[in-house]
Amino acid sequence: MTEPLKIKPVSGFPEWLPNVKLAEERLLRTIREQYELFGFTPIETPAVERMDVLTAKGGVGRQIYGINRPQEGEDKSDTDLGLHFDLTVPLARYVALNSGKLSFPFRRYQIQKVWRGERAQAGRYREFYQCDIDVVGRSSLDLVHDAEMPCVIDSVLTALGIPEFAIRVSNRKILFSLVTANGVGEEQVADVLRAVDKAHRTGEEKTRKILAAEGLSDALVDGLIAMTGCADAAEARTILEGAGASTEGLDELEFVIEHAAAFGMTPGRLLPDFSIARGLDYYTGTVYETFVTGSEKQGSVCSGGRYDDLASYFSKERFPGVGLSIGLSRLFDLMQRNELADTSRSAPTQVLVTAQDRERFLSEYLGLARLLREGGIATQVYLESHGLGKQFGYASTLGIPYAIVAGESEIAAGEVAVKDLGERTQETVARDQLVPFLRERLGLG
Amino acid sequence: MTEPLKIKPVSGFPEWLPNVKLAEERLLRTIREQYELFGFTPIETPAVERMDVLTAKGGVGRQIYGINRPQEGEDKSDTDLGLHFDLTVPLARYVALNSGKLSFPFRRYQIQKVWRGERAQAGRYREFYQCDIDVVGRSSLDLVHDAEMPCVIDSVLTALGIPEFAIRVSNRKILFSLVTANGVGEEQVADVLRAVDKAHRTGEEKTRKILAAEGLSDALVDGLIAMTGCADAAEARTILEGAGASTEGLDELEFVIEHAAAFGMTPGRLLPDFSIARGLDYYTGTVYETFVTGSEKQGSVCSGGRYDDLASYFSKERFPGVGLSIGLSRLFDLMQRNELADTSRSAPTQVLVTAQDRERFLSEYLGLARLLREGGIATQVYLESHGLGKQFGYASTLGIPYAIVAGESEIAAGEVAVKDLGERTQETVARDQLVPFLRERLGLG
Repeated sequence: MTEPLKIKPVSGFPEWLPNVKLAEERLLRTIREQYELFGFTPIETPAVERMDVLTAKGGVGRQIYGINRPQEGEDKSDTDLGLHFDLTVPLARYVALNSGKLSFPFRRYQIQKVWRGERAQAGRYREFYQCDIDVVGRSSLDLVHDAEMPCVIDSVLTALGIPEFAIRVSNRKILFSLVTANGVGEEQVADVLRAVDKAHRTGEEKTRKILAAEGLSDALVDGLIAMTGCADAAEARTILEGAGASTEGLDELEFVIEHAAAFGMTPGRLLPDFSIARGLDYYTGTVYETFVTGSEKQGSVCSGGRYDDLASYFSKERFPGVGLSIGLSRLFDLMQRNELADTSRSAPTQVLVTAQDRERFLSEYLGLARLLREGGIATQVYLESHGLGKQFGYASTLGIPYAIVAGESEIAAGEVAVKDLGERTQETVARDQLVPFLRERLGLG
Repeated sequence: MTEPLKIKPVSGFPEWLPNVKLAEERLLRTIREQYELFGFTPIETPAVERMDVLTAKGGVGRQIYGINRPQEGEDKSDTDLGLHFDLTVPLARYVALNSGKLSFPFRRYQIQKVWRGERAQAGRYREFYQCDIDVVGRSSLDLVHDAEMPCVIDSVLTALGIPEFAIRVSNRKILFSLVTANGVGEEQVADVLRAVDKAHRTGEEKTRKILAAEGLSDALVDGLIAMTGCADAAEARTILEGAGASTEGLDELEFVIEHAAAFGMTPGRLLPDFSIARGLDYYTGTVYETFVTGSEKQGSVCSGGRYDDLASYFSKERFPGVGLSIGLSRLFDLMQRNELADTSRSAPTQVLVTAQDRERFLSEYLGLARLLREGGIATQVYLESHGLGKQFGYASTLGIPYAIVAGESEIAAGEVAVKDLGERTQETVARDQLVPFLRERLGLG
């Protein structure tokens, strides 16, 4: 026999032990449920797209994983393919390809793994989950949708048990109009906004120097610094008007914040933040970032925004939209660090039917398991020949809450002993009362 | 503006329109629910494994997709990686890597996409779903688990609405003992069993010729032909005993079939089939194949078996197990062809709140939607400025069953009109009765 292969995990490609995976699975289910409650429909695109689709917008080329078959021979039909690095490019391709068959506004959610060839480092995954919602219109999409999106995320994060968080919102037109109204050329805008976006981390003094080095007037530098520090719309309006800049973006932002309240947004959770300047290139209006209170340094767990034209690289038609994407892997990391994820159970099993006397009563044990499953209770039978102590130990280690024991006398009396493995108590229950008894204990209503 | 990129789907990588995806999503949920009802716990492994892990068993090298970063520069840490082509190799690697942290018997399910560089042809996907269950023991695993596995699949396929199907079962030791007891050498066994496996398609006469050409005695050829045609265990026992072969495999098979009944197997659905000879190399005992009645030509939709040692390439410890894998993509194809998949809805939305007079009553409409969602009803508000006719059309096209209309008089009276879009009827309902009314109509209990 040859020596077994030495195996070690591949860095950047996380996987979980069962107790952690069960917690992640609960998150995924909650997100799906909430998205569907708001009428978003699931789509799934292949992990694999043509390379020219993936690179149409440029920018992320270095991070894209190509796929290849080293021994493929003459069949070259799957060359020039790569793994998707986000779910927005596939959505754009999907909408362009299927626009004749979709109904608009098209409300879709998409929960899938994406892959990025990031340099391996703490908290950077090469394979991770994104959970996206977008509403896509054909030709036009009412601004009121921009007010709905953060309310969906508010519901999702609340349902996930995140105790406090803030969705920060701005509009790309605000800073854009401020700088372009003051003589900053188009080729320079990106550099200036990048410096503004980093202002909180860089510090005021250094940011002033950077902006001055870009050739900006003192008045504009003052305006930009004031804008990143300003907390309400009235103050922002004064700055814009003082600089002779358009207030269109600010008007939109005020509309969004005002209407979000009508959508049921929890008060105080949607906050204007005029320092949000970056965001992926395609955002053209509203932009969002979401921070878990106390974990702001971990970065935004849910970002997105409004785009004028989703599929411009793939279609001559215009598809405006607005979307948000939960970075589930990052959020889950943060929840684990803050003990917000319940990882106490390593199996979905709610009841273990033990086999005290397998030789004589196996059919009885299997019948009990069938009865429980028909009652909607996740049940497994211990099928190895081991003593009861080992069977209880197995249940406890997995975090299974209840075990059932039935020996000769119980079976003769039509009863079973139900052991609560957490409380370490035991009760005798009639067989025909077993399902309602356990459903009540398990909180299954 | 540049010309948009011409996009076309990549062959072998399927994706669905929303109505079909919703149906597939329901299948995935049902399978998960059923697997958990039997106490299987979800795990998920990365799509990406080291190439030496993927090729440890050999055999499928040509079909494996490697991944690479064309522009990766000096960071070579993700070379020699590939996409998994099944979920069994990743399970073996996972068990070997984590054996100290798992409880055995380890009951896991795993539902993920896998990738194979198959030659593109009808019904052959390069990316498709597998839905696996396995029970893995440490050192040993009781044979009774082999009787439980087909019962899990029986429950799953029943819950999916497959009207009739048969799980065919055999044991690899049966044909193996028959041929090796009669002088067939180890190097020849695979060729002989392959010919036997194909006997039903090849026909008796031609199969006899092939087997004779392998140098088999007339008596052995008779025995093999009789075995592939025999339908019950007693007859098989006569053949084995007549040939002086071991009956160990047959004893195991009888045990499995007998005990499956106690696990609740639907009578007539688990059938011995002594012609099942192939199966992936690692099966060493029980083997299963599953055919939907009337669609046998589409091949097995769920196959699996018992293996003596799952992780022999990755660990010195022995991990015997038994597993079954539903080929979901193939099964879903077959269900669509047989009209067993409900593709009538393109959104999970149960109620569309229309906006008859958005300017005045938007808050009212949003409040109705909140009320319904709090009652667990999937709801969306129509947020574009269009007439009611267009709004109803949108709901009908998506297959949304109910629409709510509220104008000035309804709102003043604390009522809404509920439109049943299927029946084309309308009822007036008091606002505070709306949730119970719709929950009852929607069958939400």
